Parts: sequence; C-alpha cells; structure tokens
Amino acid sequence: MKNTCTDELPLTMNSSERQETVCIFGTGDFGRSLGFKMLQCGYSVVFGSRNPRMSNMLPSGAEVLSYSEAAQKSDIIIVTIHREHYDFLTELTLVLNGKILVDVSNNLKINQYPESNAEYLAQLVPGTYVVKAFNTISAWALQSGALDASRQVFVCGNDSKAKQRVMDIVRTLGLTPLDQGSLTAASEIENYPLQLFPMWRFPFYLSAVLCIFFFFYCVIREVIFPYICEKKDATFRMAISIPNRIFPIAALILLALVYLPGVIAAILQLYRGTKYRRFPDWLDHWMLCRKQLGLVALGFAFLHVLYTLVIPIRYFVRWKLKNITITEMINNKGSPFITSSAWLSDSYVALGILGFFLFVLLGITSLPSVSNMVNWREFRFVQSKLGYLTLILCTAHTLVYGGKKFLSPSVLRWGLPSAYVLALIIPCTVLVIKFILIMPCIDKTLTRIRQGWERNSKMSSVLNGKTDI
Amino acid sequence: MKNTCTDELPLTMNSSERQETVCIFGTGDFGRSLGFKMLQCGYSVVFGSRNPRMSNMLPSGAEVLSYSEAAQKSDIIIVTIHREHYDFLTELTLVLNGKILVDVSNNLKINQYPESNAEYLAQLVPGTYVVKAFNTISAWALQSGALDASRQVFVCGNDSKAKQRVMDIVRTLGLTPLDQGSLTAASEIENYPLQLFPMWRFPFYLSAVLCIFFFFYCVIREVIFPYICEKKDATFRMAISIPNRIFPIAALILLALVYLPGVIAAILQLYRGTKYRRFPDWLDHWMLCRKQLGLVALGFAFLHVLYTLVIPIRYFVRWKLKNITITEMINNKGSPFITSSAWLSDSYVALGILGFFLFVLLGITSLPSVSNMVNWREFRFVQSKLGYLTLILCTAHTLVYGGKKFLSPSVLRWGLPSAYVLALIIPCTVLVIKFILIMPCIDKTLTRIRQGWERNSKMSSVLNGKTDI
Amino acid sequence: MKNTCTDELPLTMNSSERQETVCIFGTGDFGRSLGFKMLQCGYSVVFGSRNPRMSNMLPSGAEVLSYSEAAQKSDIIIVTIHREHYDFLTELTLVLNGKILVDVSNNLKINQYPESNAEYLAQLVPGTYVVKAFNTISAWALQSGALDASRQVFVCGNDSKAKQRVMDIVRTLGLTPLDQGSLTAASEIENYPLQLFPMWRFPFYLSAVLCIFFFFYCVIREVIFPYICEKKDATFRMAISIPNRIFPIAALILLALVYLPGVIAAILQLYRGTKYRRFPDWLDHWMLCRKQLGLVALGFAFLHVLYTLVIPIRYFVRWKLKNITITEMINNKGSPFITSSAWLSDSYVALGILGFFLFVLLGITSLPSVSNMVNWREFRFVQSKLGYLTLILCTAHTLVYGGKKFLSPSVLRWGLPSAYVLALIIPCTVLVIKFILIMPCIDKTLTRIRQGWERNSKMSSVLNGKTDI
Repeated sequence: MKNTCTDELPLTMNSSERQETVCIFGTGDFGRSLGFKMLQCGYSVVFGSRNPRMSNMLPSGAEVLSYSEAAQKSDIIIVTIHREHYDFLTELTLVLNGKILVDVSNNLKINQYPESNAEYLAQLVPGTYVVKAFNTISAWALQSGALDASRQVFVCGNDSKAKQRVMDIVRTLGLTPLDQGSLTAASEIENYPLQLFPMWRFPFYLSAVLCIFFFFYCVIREVIFPYICEKKDATFRMAISIPNRIFPIAALILLALVYLPGVIAAILQLYRGTKYRRFPDWLDHWMLCRKQLGLVALGFAFLHVLYTLVIPIRYFVRWKLKNITITEMINNKGSPFITSSAWLSDSYVALGILGFFLFVLLGITSLPSVSNMVNWREFRFVQSKLGYLTLILCTAHTLVYGGKKFLSPSVLRWGLPSAYVLALIIPCTVLVIKFILIMPCIDKTLTRIRQGWERNSKMSSVLNGKTDI
Repeated sequence: MKNTCTDELPLTMNSSERQETVCIFGTGDFGRSLGFKMLQCGYSVVFGSRNPRMSNMLPSGAEVLSYSEAAQKSDIIIVTIHREHYDFLTELTLVLNGKILVDVSNNLKINQYPESNAEYLAQLVPGTYVVKAFNTISAWALQSGALDASRQVFVCGNDSKAKQRVMDIVRTLGLTPLDQGSLTAASEIENYPLQLFPMWRFPFYLSAVLCIFFFFYCVIREVIFPYICEKKDATFRMAISIPNRIFPIAALILLALVYLPGVIAAILQLYRGTKYRRFPDWLDHWMLCRKQLGLVALGFAFLHVLYTLVIPIRYFVRWKLKNITITEMINNKGSPFITSSAWLSDSYVALGILGFFLFVLLGITSLPSVSNMVNWREFRFVQSKLGYLTLILCTAHTLVYGGKKFLSPSVLRWGLPSAYVLALIIPCTVLVIKFILIMPCIDKTLTRIRQGWERNSKMSSVLNGKTDI
Repeated sequence: MKNTCTDELPLTMNSSERQETVCIFGTGDFGRSLGFKMLQCGYSVVFGSRNPRMSNMLPSGAEVLSYSEAAQKSDIIIVTIHREHYDFLTELTLVLNGKILVDVSNNLKINQYPESNAEYLAQLVPGTYVVKAFNTISAWALQSGALDASRQVFVCGNDSKAKQRVMDIVRTLGLTPLDQGSLTAASEIENYPLQLFPMWRFPFYLSAVLCIFFFFYCVIREVIFPYICEKKDATFRMAISIPNRIFPIAALILLALVYLPGVIAAILQLYRGTKYRRFPDWLDHWMLCRKQLGLVALGFAFLHVLYTLVIPIRYFVRWKLKNITITEMINNKGSPFITSSAWLSDSYVALGILGFFLFVLLGITSLPSVSNMVNWREFRFVQSKLGYLTLILCTAHTLVYGGKKFLSPSVLRWGLPSAYVLALIIPCTVLVIKFILIMPCIDKTLTRIRQGWERNSKMSSVLNGKTDI
C-alpha cells in the first residue's frame, strides 16, 4: 500500500463527516484528477467552469457551477488554468476577496515570464492570499496513485495561515508538503519541474570529454599504430579492449576530481588565513556536485569491473592462450613459474577489488535514505576517510598495473605513453598535496582556521573562535 | 540513533511536565508495549483492566484502574482488545461519551468481517470519536525500538480534530502518521498488515511460468536429445548451462513486458482518439505493476551475469579448452585467428554489459528514496528513455549472440530452434511498434491527444486542451 | 532541488510578509549560518552580540544589537554560544523571563558534563522555556544547502508549546524535526553527533577477529607448511588465494550469527515457558545489531564473489592451466571427462550464486527507504524465510565445495583441517536447532507462548492471551 489515499480507498466517496469544501477553477485534466482525489480523501469539491453545462467527465460527487457561484462555496480556490487565461479572474475580484487562491500552473520553459505565475496571479487579484502548490505532481500520478516519482509538493506563499491550510490539504492527499517560504520562491518552484538533472550536467559533459579524448588516444596507439607499422588489423579491440582502458581511466580521474576541490579549498584557506571569505563560484559549484562526480566515477568503475571479468570468455583471449600453449609445446619448453609476476598480477588485482569494494560502499552511503540515518560525523568519516582510502587503493591499483614496464621506452608508440600513465597525473597530485596538508604543523593551522580563528584579526578570533559556536 | 523515542531515552520516565494523560484499555502485550513507550515519551498512562489487581508486568509509572475509572482520567482511550470482546464497552457508553477511542486491532485474515473493526466499534459506542491507528506497528518493534520495518502509522477517522490529536501522539512516539481520510478507510488499513507483496504476485507467477516452460524446453533440446541421438550424458548441464539460458530469456521477456502495456495504451488512445476513456482493468493493473516486472527482470539479468562470469571456472569448460588445445596440437595445426569472430564475440559481450549497466541504473532510480529526489520529468526521462535504450541493447545482445547460426537448420533439434529465438519475439514486436509510434506524423497526433485534444468533440478540446490544465 | 530553502531561494531576502522575528545570541560561524538561512526562509533575524559594533560578516538584512536589546525583539532566542560562556545569561534573567531559549550546543566528548548543556541552561536561567535543537546540523550544511547528511533535527523540551514553535521553525527551514520528549533527552541528543557507528562496533570487531585468526590459520597451512615440507615459496598466495578463503568463511559465520540469537531466544522462551521475562542484555544487544552483522557478512560475500571471478585472469592460474595441458600432452594422454566432477563443480558454483543473489536481496530490503515500504509481515517474510534460505544455500555451497575430500586425511596438514571445515560448525548448528524448533510439536508451543500464553499462570493467559492484544 503506497501511502496515498487513492490506492487505499478506491471507493471512499465523501462520507459527509469532514465538511471542508474546496473549489477548483477549471475542468481540465489536472483539475479533474485533483478533484477526484480530493473527493476520495473526503473533501467536498465544487468545480468552477466557464460553461458548467458543457463540462464532461467530471468525477461523480462533484458539483459544477459558474466561476462566481463556485467561488462563493469555499474559501480555498485551486486555479487549474493556464496563465494566459488568468485575466478573467479580475472580474471576480470582489467574490475572491480574502480567499485563498492556489496556483498550480507550470510553464513550458524555464523563466518563461519575467515574474512567476503565482506572483502574476497575486498582482492580478489583489486582496487574495495566493499560495503556490501542486505544480510538481502529474495528473496521471494523481489518478493512478502510482506516485513512484516524487511525492513532494513545494508550497510557498506570503500568508502563513493560508499556506498552512494548503499544506494540510496536501498532507491529507498523502503527499509531502515542503514549505519554501514566501511567494518569491514561486519562480524557483515553477522552474523545478522543467529541470533535467542540473547537478549532473557538469559531471556528464566532463566524463564525455574524457571518454572521447582517451578513445582516440587509444585508437591511435592500439589500432592505427599496429595497422601502419605491423599491418595488423586490431579493429576488434574497439569493442572491449579499448573501452576497458577508457573506463578505469575516467573513473580514476573523476574520483580524483571529487577530492581536488577540497584540497584547493584548504590551500585557499591557509593562504587567506581565514575561512570567512567566500570561495570563488566555480569552486563552490564544483564542491556541490562532488557527489554526482563520484557517482559517475562509480559507474565507470562498475563497467571496468564487468569488462575485466569477461576477459577470459573472449574469443581473442581463448585463441591467444591456446596458441601460446601450442607454440611453447612445439618449442618443447614449458615456461617456468615466476613468483614475482604472480605477486605483481595478484596484488594488482587485489588492490583493484578492494578499491572497488570501498567505492561501492561510498556509493551506497550516498543514497538519500542511508545518509539520512547517519550523523554528520559518521557521514564525514565515510565520505572523507573512506573516500581517500578508495582513491589511494585505486591509484595503487593503476601503478602496480604499470608494474615494471611503467615508462620503459618499449611501450612508447610514436612517443605516446600508455593511456593509464596520463590518468595517474591528477590522482597523484591530489594525494601528494593531501599528504602535505595532513602533516601536523599545517594540519594544526588549518584546524584552527576552520574553528573560526583568523590570522589577521585578534578581535574576531575572540568573538568567533572562542565564545560563539 | 534511530529516530524513535525508545532508542534514545531508555530512562526518560515522565518528568511530569507534559500533563497529557492517555488511557489504554487492555493490558495485553501490545497494550503494555504502547504504554511503556508513551511513558518514555513523557505521557502519563492509565491502564483500564477487567481486574486491575491481577494485571501483572505493567510498565512502572503507569496506573491500573477499572475500565470506567481509567476512562474518566483521559479523553483519549486506546482500545487494545480483540474485536470479539468489544461488547463490554457498551456498558461504558456514558463514560466514553464525547471521548476519542483509538482502535488498534487487526484481523487474522483479509476481510474477515463484513465491516472493519473500527466501524464496528463506532456503531457499538455511539457518541465517541473513533480513530483507527497503530495497527501496522508490532509490539516487539515498540519495545525494542528496532523499527527496521515500517514506521508508518495509517490513521483514519471521521472527526478531523480527534484524528489530529491521535496523529500528534503518533508523531511524538517517533512514528510517521499518514492520514487516510474517513473511517471507511479502516477496512483497507486493517487488511494492510495481512498483505504479502500483492503487487509482486503477477510478476512472480509470470516469471515462474516462463522459467518452468523454458527449463523443459532446454532440457529436451540439450539433455534428452543428445542422450537419445548421441548417447551422451549431458545431465550436468542442468546445474549451470541451462539456467544460464533460462535467466537471460526470462529477463528479456519480462523487460519487454514492462514496455508492452505502454505501447498498447498508446494504440488504444490513437484508436479511440481520446485519452478520456478508461483503459480496461487488466491494462491498468499491468501498468501499475510495471515497476515490479522490471525489478524481477533485473534479478534474472543479475543471475545471468553471475552465471556467465563463472563460465571459465567450470570444470567442464576447462576440460574442453584443454582437450581442444591437445587435439589441435596432435593434428599439428593451430587454428588461425578470425577477426570477424573476435568482433562478433566482443560486441556481443559489450552490448550485454552496457545493457546490464543501464538496467542496474534503472533499478537504482526505482529505489523509493532516489525516485523521491527526482522530479517528474527526470523520472520519466530515466524510466522511459533509458528504459527503451536498455531494451534495445539487450535485444541486440541476444541477436548478436545468435550471430550467423541464427536460424540455420544445423541448430534445429527435432525441429526446435534454440530457446533464445523464442525469447526475441516479444521484445522485437515492442521495439517495432514503438518505432512506428515515434514517427513524426503518429507522434504528433498522440501528443495532442495526451494534451487533452479529442478527435470527436470540438467543444471539449476548447474546454480542456486550451484554457485549463 | 533538494528540499531545503537555501537551494531554492538563494536570493529570497525576507519579503516582510511573515512577521516572525527570531533572535540569535552569538555571531559565531553557526549563528551566522543559521541567521542567513532564516532570512532566506522569510524570518527577520536579530543578532545579540557582546560588542555589536565589532561583529563582522553578518548576513545582510540582519540586525545586530546588544544581548539585552536583541532579546527584547523576539520571544525565541537561539543561543549559539559555547556552554562555558553561558554565565553572562544570568544577568539577562529579567529580560529572558518567559521566553524560549533554544540550546544548539554540542560537546567535544560523550557525557563531558554531569548534566546536558540544555539542562544546565535551564537551571541557569529559570523562568525560561529551554528547548534543545539544531545540534545535529552543521554550519557548512546550512550555508551550502548540501544537506547530504541527515536532515533530522532532534528536538526536546519540557514545554510542549515552546517545543512546537521551535519545530515549526525547523520545518520551515526544510529540515525534519523529531520530537524526543522532555529535556531529559537532551544529554542523548548532545551525545548523538559524537557517536561513530555505535551499532557497527560489535560486528566490526568480531569480523576483525575472525579475519585475523583465519588469516594466520591459512598462512600456516598454505604458506609455511609447503615452505618447510616442500621448500616451495607460496607467499604470493597471501594476495588473493588466502583472502579468498577468509572472506567466504567470515561471511558464512557472520550470517549464521545473525540467526543464532533468534534460535537462542526461542530456546529461552521454551525453557521459561513465557515471553514476559526480559532476555539477558547481551542477547538483547545481539538481536539489535543483527542487521549490521548481516550487512558486514554481505560485504565479505561480495568480496568473495569478486575474488572468485578474477581467478581465471590470474597469472598463476593461467600458468598452471598451460602446464597441465603441456604435461598431459607430453604423456600423450588427454584426461577423460568425469561427469560427476562436472556435477560437483557446477552445483557448487550454482549454489553459491543463488545464495549470493538472495543475500543481495536481503541487503536491498534492509535499505531504510525500502523497508519503509513493506509491512511487518512482508518484512518478517523476507528477513526470516529468505534469510534462512540464504543460510541454507551458503552452507550447502561450502559443503559441496568440500565434496569428496571433505575430511580425508590427505588434506590434513600438521593435523589441521582445511579452514572451511571450521567455518561450517556454527551454521550447521544453527540450521539443526532451527530444524528441531520448526517441528510441529515444538513449534506449536512456541507460537502459543509468543501469543502471550504462559505455562505457569492460568490467570494471565486469560488476561493476555485471550481478550487483550
């Protein structure tokens, strides 16, 4: 049972005990769905329509009247009408005076109008209490009760009492009202349903760029080079071998970029000797989308794992193994077992697995419902301590992978080093700086700064650092 | 700290500041647990019992009186007594007049009685405000504070004020009250704790049928056939090889069935020329359990991945590889490397991995806490766009798997094609129809219909499509 | 859009409609962040400071006055000052009389002071309503709106109305207030932010001990033994082979320990013939951290799966395969295919996969947001029925792994059996006892006991078992 009214009481027509009447202007799809649901939850509903006689398909149990008649029946009026047609409300100013108007409208594109629909409505019909609500809920969701998507209803308005009454209705419908403050919030609320993963854009584009760059880099080294120099057709590598180079590289770099801003911030604070100066905007934004960066990185890591585990199934690999065996056989010499190689290959794999494991842990703890159960200290512990451990393991994994042939000229092709070498630059930088930052002397200063101490002002240190929280 | 009172304040006995007194009828297990918790949260509790002297084990700090005495102490009375024994309350009608009776009872089977216990109670004791609540919480959870299961307390009642007071108590106990409307909701609420995954039943049975059918289908082709025709014992295939055919097939079919209803609905709307006619019930129900269908499919896909990745570890596979090598060796001819086969095997694997990756993404976004963070547009984007991409990738994965030997007579056994061929029917149908539906001309009509336009009625299109939301 | 005010309205300065004024004592980091946020949510904010002139960096739109002046402006005063400096408030007793003081302070270590800061404050300034709140929220989170960590604000206080007003503010700031009862809860609330996974400690240490023990056990058997007796250097096994013995063992034992307490509890109840006697504390605690035990076990299982799947990629394994083939080649005899071995290896793998699959299911259902959607019966079904099935599968997986060579002397080294043999002790015990417990006769008694029946007292059985819930 989803905790909505609809799912539960398909038949609960108003049992006339709860007297509250709500008026809905407009008999469109959303208006009807909302009315339907309100009836189910025990409200009595009056529809206001331009030509009541011609309104069809209204939920049974609802009354349909002209706008002005309907308005008189209730002191809460939900306006389910497109902004372009608000004008007719001006004629009703008298009837509407002192009533609560709920604006549910959405626009077609972000910031379509200079002011939000709700504010426009408020200007249009002075003397009413305009409340913005319900614009995040879809008609279909209301009807079917399949509120898989958000149950959250953002509410804002200038009159607390009016807002409170609307929030009560929202709650009764089994939805979650979220007070967003005064009506100036309306424009934000109206833009919200039009957003498409705004926080994910930067990580997404960034990873796209990384992938494309490294794809061509690898194609040059592993397809074009052998084709030209050895006349070998290695195109089939583009299906798995090359992606399986790109993904771990992207994962590692993105993971490092999660921790880079924190390091930069620390340096800035050390340099300025105070934490009371705002960071540049790009840094702020970067810090706010760290979570998304990390999750994208996790995605790449996941793909890398899968691509690696299928290696032995691949035709190419099986064929190669077979031929090696056969050739060795023919030359009649079995290769001896080299412990160091065993160590290298095993520890490289082990590091990778442990890194991935911690990475998954980080991902799980970033689930809203999980991070809601932990306190601030625990959250910091996981995201910072475990996070750095993950970064260290993954970097080590890559370093060991390089092993002996790390920068040996033999692997250079047209002077290009293997791709993973480039991937190591950022992570190593981050780790080195971090290592310097946690050295006692520096760490002490930083901690004091973060506790409010300021290098240049004794006074404020007295004020903030000492007595106040 | 789970956000319940118990966990936090094992010792907070009522510090006599909050005066509110609550009366509990019945000293059974649940009554005592509830009383215990209320005391912890600072209420003063009075138990009403048939023979107060003989009631043992009551939480310290609570008073025990006869029913009528206890009732006089508070205007909220929680009735923790089995429905069969409600009759004695009739004698108390006078004392109870105007008080709030909270019905916490549950039944042993769904719709055990003609009317809900709460409604029965209301008839029995007129002049009281009956509120249904707490029936979803277990005594053990209250005592131990281990509210791992739902914290949700469904509340319904005909009197808003009474309901509000009960909901305040629920909130104070660290639980989440959910207003379910008038008392007619009680029967639903009483049935809720007796449900066992109602939405999952259809997907579960469906997949069971699929598995059984394809199991026998594969056994015939891969165990019985070779046994009869080649006298080979291939029974061991039943442990891994055959399941690893069944699971991907089930996953693919179920995934396709997630998108089939949407396609059917679109066709219906196009045919009817309106969206304002209800779909047949089977379609509605199907649409509402799409999420469950998809998650079951994901489960099968997950199993398929694991079963595939262990292939190289299997004794059979290793033995086969070894023998191939040896035989080739003996015949003294290493097999040449065929690029096309490499391409085929690699791209087949790659498609599978990408499909599975997107599938996992879909699964994660269907977690309640995640889908709660996204707006309707984002949810649609993921579930529809990414969903279809997943379906395309998985279908392609299967098609490439077939590769050259797709329907070649060589693979027919007793005229039966390989199982995966059957698995492709539904997905391909869905994809083809969808492809037709998104062709500009058709898509345009569909969009207009979904915006409220109706083919046969100019009028309503004016009413709904244009002015109203 | 995270449902906080900040994220949404970076610019919503108070639009002077909502008149409520809040006073904040102290201009420290947290005070300013809180003030900033409140302004955004439409409150008017007055800061109280020791020397108002010298307070810098206050959010624009806020007033700064002396403590006493500021206090007069509002009847809610948020004290963002360290406990050590509360004394100055005594001078303000007159001004503060009858006002609400909100204590947001935290300590540096758990139970630092005999009484909680809030209670101390209440004693210090009699005649005020002290409410504890906001101590779980970090200044940075308030500023940036990046409330990834908990949104939960624990509120407690002795005066309901005062508490209610504070909870309204909390709600308006987009946070989730949780009423924790009277002020005695304050010490708990102040300790909360200092906790670091208290419930996880026992599982963590336990698994650490297990890992260390089995690590040395395996090192002795698989590294030292061959080194001494066969002069073979098997150290490289420590990277993967040995961890891949430890992890499954730890997983199996921990999983068994999840179900052991339940079994013990059942035995206790049968022995005592009643459920109305408390379990020993160690058992209670054990029962409450079962979830954590299970999740740690899942972690180990996950690692085991990864370590197993990479086997074919390892240098050692490839080298071995190759050599086996070559030697067989030389001796000119291909090994015959043994169906029984195929059965053994396949079914062993299959059991493991199915066990892991169910284990993952259990893990997912233990996610807060998921377990919140299921009712008590469903939760029990998953955690108990599926849980036991998982345990059975995993135990069988280990037993089959042993296969023929289970306890054959050949595998004994220095009389030590293989590690997995030890791992089987607890799981098998649990399963055997459980099997006995679910036998009709015993099960019947147990059920009756759990329904409230008591062996020794007819009376209470009448009281509890029969009439009351």
